[in-house]
Amino acid sequence: MIRVEQQRTHFCGEICDPSLVSKRVTLTGWVQNYRDHGGLMFIDLRDRSGLVQLVFDPQTNPAAHEIAKKARHEDVLSVSGIVQNRDPENVNPKMKTGAYEVKIDRIDFLNRSKTPPFQIDQEDVSEEIRLKYRYLDIRRPAMYNNLFMRHRITQTVRRFLDEHGFLEVETPILNRSTPEGARDFLVPSRLSHGKFYALPQSPQIFKQLLMVGGLERYYQIARCFRDEDLRADRQPEFTQIDIEMSFVRQEDVMRLMEQMIARVLEENYDIKISLPIAQITYQEAMEKYGIDRPDLRFGMELVDVTDVVRDSDFAVFKTVAEKGGMIKCLPVPEGDRLSRKDLDDLIAFVGKYGAKGMAWMRVKDGKLESNIVKYFSDSIQQKLLEVTGARENYTLLFVGDVKKKVVYDSMANLRLHLGDRFGLRKKGELKFVWVVDFPLFEWNEEENRYDAVHHPFTAPKLEDMALLETDPLKVRSDAYDLVLNGIELGGGSIRIHDMELQAKIFELLKISREEAREKFGFLLEALEFGAPPHGGLAFGLDRMVMEFQGLSNIRDVIAFPKTQKGTDMMCDSPSEVTPKQLEELGIKVVEYRANK
Amino acid sequence: MIRVEQQRTHFCGEICDPSLVSKRVTLTGWVQNYRDHGGLMFIDLRDRSGLVQLVFDPQTNPAAHEIAKKARHEDVLSVSGIVQNRDPENVNPKMKTGAYEVKIDRIDFLNRSKTPPFQIDQEDVSEEIRLKYRYLDIRRPAMYNNLFMRHRITQTVRRFLDEHGFLEVETPILNRSTPEGARDFLVPSRLSHGKFYALPQSPQIFKQLLMVGGLERYYQIARCFRDEDLRADRQPEFTQIDIEMSFVRQEDVMRLMEQMIARVLEENYDIKISLPIAQITYQEAMEKYGIDRPDLRFGMELVDVTDVVRDSDFAVFKTVAEKGGMIKCLPVPEGDRLSRKDLDDLIAFVGKYGAKGMAWMRVKDGKLESNIVKYFSDSIQQKLLEVTGARENYTLLFVGDVKKKVVYDSMANLRLHLGDRFGLRKKGELKFVWVVDFPLFEWNEEENRYDAVHHPFTAPKLEDMALLETDPLKVRSDAYDLVLNGIELGGGSIRIHDMELQAKIFELLKISREEAREKFGFLLEALEFGAPPHGGLAFGLDRMVMEFQGLSNIRDVIAFPKTQKGTDMMCDSPSEVTPKQLEELGIKVVEYRANK
Repeated sequence: MIRVEQQRTHFCGEICDPSLVSKRVTLTGWVQNYRDHGGLMFIDLRDRSGLVQLVFDPQTNPAAHEIAKKARHEDVLSVSGIVQNRDPENVNPKMKTGAYEVKIDRIDFLNRSKTPPFQIDQEDVSEEIRLKYRYLDIRRPAMYNNLFMRHRITQTVRRFLDEHGFLEVETPILNRSTPEGARDFLVPSRLSHGKFYALPQSPQIFKQLLMVGGLERYYQIARCFRDEDLRADRQPEFTQIDIEMSFVRQEDVMRLMEQMIARVLEENYDIKISLPIAQITYQEAMEKYGIDRPDLRFGMELVDVTDVVRDSDFAVFKTVAEKGGMIKCLPVPEGDRLSRKDLDDLIAFVGKYGAKGMAWMRVKDGKLESNIVKYFSDSIQQKLLEVTGARENYTLLFVGDVKKKVVYDSMANLRLHLGDRFGLRKKGELKFVWVVDFPLFEWNEEENRYDAVHHPFTAPKLEDMALLETDPLKVRSDAYDLVLNGIELGGGSIRIHDMELQAKIFELLKISREEAREKFGFLLEALEFGAPPHGGLAFGLDRMVMEFQGLSNIRDVIAFPKTQKGTDMMCDSPSEVTPKQLEELGIKVVEYRANK
Repeated sequence: MIRVEQQRTHFCGEICDPSLVSKRVTLTGWVQNYRDHGGLMFIDLRDRSGLVQLVFDPQTNPAAHEIAKKARHEDVLSVSGIVQNRDPENVNPKMKTGAYEVKIDRIDFLNRSKTPPFQIDQEDVSEEIRLKYRYLDIRRPAMYNNLFMRHRITQTVRRFLDEHGFLEVETPILNRSTPEGARDFLVPSRLSHGKFYALPQSPQIFKQLLMVGGLERYYQIARCFRDEDLRADRQPEFTQIDIEMSFVRQEDVMRLMEQMIARVLEENYDIKISLPIAQITYQEAMEKYGIDRPDLRFGMELVDVTDVVRDSDFAVFKTVAEKGGMIKCLPVPEGDRLSRKDLDDLIAFVGKYGAKGMAWMRVKDGKLESNIVKYFSDSIQQKLLEVTGARENYTLLFVGDVKKKVVYDSMANLRLHLGDRFGLRKKGELKFVWVVDFPLFEWNEEENRYDAVHHPFTAPKLEDMALLETDPLKVRSDAYDLVLNGIELGGGSIRIHDMELQAKIFELLKISREEAREKFGFLLEALEFGAPPHGGLAFGLDRMVMEFQGLSNIRDVIAFPKTQKGTDMMCDSPSEVTPKQLEELGIKVVEYRANK
């Protein structure tokens, strides 16, 4: 085994400075490429900083040249030599170090490599292979850069929060299971057979306890766990920037957090965003965009036309309107680019979101045209043009349904779909918005009770307090989400710090006193011992890095991610364990009747 | 519910500046104490920064005074008023804010508190109550300070490592179980019934994979898990500062890490330590102190007297020497302070470590005295005085045994015991030492094979490589521990980066090729694709903070620790879960035959 004998003097990527010419440098790294050319050997040596060209001349350094001839892809080298300018015709302007090369007189192999399953500068590698050989995948500059930027973003966040008096506190990973929200990962206890820890879905309760404990400002870059069936952008374990503050109002949290985001962008991407970030109410977001995380990089706002078309002769709309449903219109500028075939495809598209159909009209010569126009009187047509602001060559798309959710879902997705199609969702453009005034409750049809929209500790707005008694669905909460380009970066709320109010909320959620005590006992007790007003927020770090890096695959910002089946391709986990391990834990693997 | 209406202008502890006198301040915090005195109401208001005295005058502000009368311990207040100097006779020099008070004209209760189970400034609170009401416990300034200093230490570490080009990378918590080392916590997989994840005992393999991946410098403040029966200073989950570097030698890692420790002490405790930190070989540590983590705050070095007493007439020593055993002497300065009763107690003390007895001699008037002196010739006595350096009033304590481990254990503990007793282990004195040149292997009698002293990836010293073939127990490793005052703060090693050597080591550990592939498959494969030379180290963060804070209970530096039974007193975890949860995981709680 060969050890490091001489420390490197420079990183490969640093050989880009005229003052280094004629100086001796020692480098270490990996063989990216090698070639024999004009009697000389050339090796492109790579370390995490970049590439540099090494040259071996058999005339002046025959020993080094002889060794260099053995170099193959991904061998690990230690080399020493003199920096020189490349011949003008060999300068490579695409490389940072492309004007220089190092003439090597000493070379040692620190390790050899088998032929790798893919080359580091190869682009068409399947994700399966990349995950299996993750240790080679992260040699690729793009992957290294993702991890590097993730590090830098995290450091900025920590520095910012440290400067603002936040304490980083570690909360337990071995937690108590609460049958609320998503499914818990469980950990059997060996010392107490039959009992289990749960991995935290978030440090929510602990961060509130820290506020009760007078810590005042807490943060943690916290690992969280959800045992859910995985979607493309979900991982069973994920990381959130978790924050909680005492003696604050909603505005205080939002103002500080947007400063933090601005700092992250400025320090790491040299992007300045203007503060404060715009706000939109939940209600307005739903009406204009059909979704509570609108992509504001483009317009195409939805228009409610229920009242306009109520008196038309178009039976579908009439029925929907009569039954208390909703009809929305999406006015598409330059909608004449949509062919009949396109429109048929869009009808199929909204069908995926439950819409039973989609009507359309075109604006031609100032008039509406389509096969259904005849059902709309001139005055209704005129009114439609007015309320939608439609102009020449617009196409109006309509979806109506008795269930408002169907209209929101299909229209929101239709809007995004057309935004993509018309190139309106520009990469590199960052449109932030705070969504505020979320409703506190939603109605749970199945269980005939209210559900908390965020979580049961979210505070109602002071001015809506009376509505708790009369019309709970109208109560707005002190909750807020930060949305970027249609992606929820994070969200939070002011919490209830008053035990009486908390009891009232549990009552509305039909959580009995016993149940509440069983689930949240220690938090409820804590609220009785002088809990300060407090609130906070959590950002999804993985998603934040992904968005800022302009990526679409969340696995690209995680060093060792899991697949959608929750497996680790490299480690081959989860795996079987020994009978002794199970015996010590007092558990047994069993086949229940098929229940899925 | 009352919300925060006015933002505080100052922390309580900041009211200690003459320039604030006559200025209006708004404060928030908890009622630490309240009293009616001379017609005025006084409240000591506490936030995380400290205490300040509020005064309520019924003459000038009757409304505020009326409200203040209702204040009880741990109520949460928002107050506003004018800072004034205290009357000279009321100045409290023990309080940072003791020269000032705030005359309040506006007071709001932000929350009320039930009577707390203990008062925040109370000292005689049982740990059980403290853990159950942890949210009250961390209101105590001492506990807050521990969490604050832990935060600061962590920040210093991060800044230092960031400056030195380390990337913080998160490695998975849902891991693969490896039946090596301590017992794993397991997590049943719902998506693959019968398979399990394991929580990581350390990120060892992942950090090595990151080095193979060319990341070059990695760190993580990493949560680690061991399902062991807990000792006083062990927690089932603990945190380590985990570090790995490429293209380095042992010295490079040690030099950088001691700079980091020095920075932590300088920035947070204003303590300067001189670098480089001293080194001692494992062999020397064992010979002089009987232990591989010596407390160097005091001398009292052990002396091997086997050869000196071999030819005495003292049968016990003769037999031990003949059988190849070892006799060690601990020379105790001022040993005349040990009474006969004390010596009897010490005999019982070493018995706990397996010693069958302890002999002793006193130095009186330049001569040795004891009931066994007669078995030692004059020349042996003279020699004993010489080799032990014993002078007047020394007491020499002897333990001999055929098993060297018994001698080391009993003498190491005896030395520490006497160090405590004679007040030689001074609080506040910091004696660091690097222990180096650990043996690579130890012999496993039961299984008739070698065991790795650190772990199977530790590199042997280059100069001892030949001994791998001839005398493996003599092979020293490139492993190093940093020891402070007899406590191991952390340790690490240079790793094997060469597959052939790794295979050789597995052979000596009698780990078959199949077994190795099963256990470490992906790491072994990774070593074949151009692994660079690399090494690293891990510090126990909990222990480090505990030592630097001068504490003896590791739970005092953890926000929400577990008891020695692995339970959380506050959350009452682990807990039972629902049958549905177990069914989804495909496991069942069973009673195995009693196996413990």
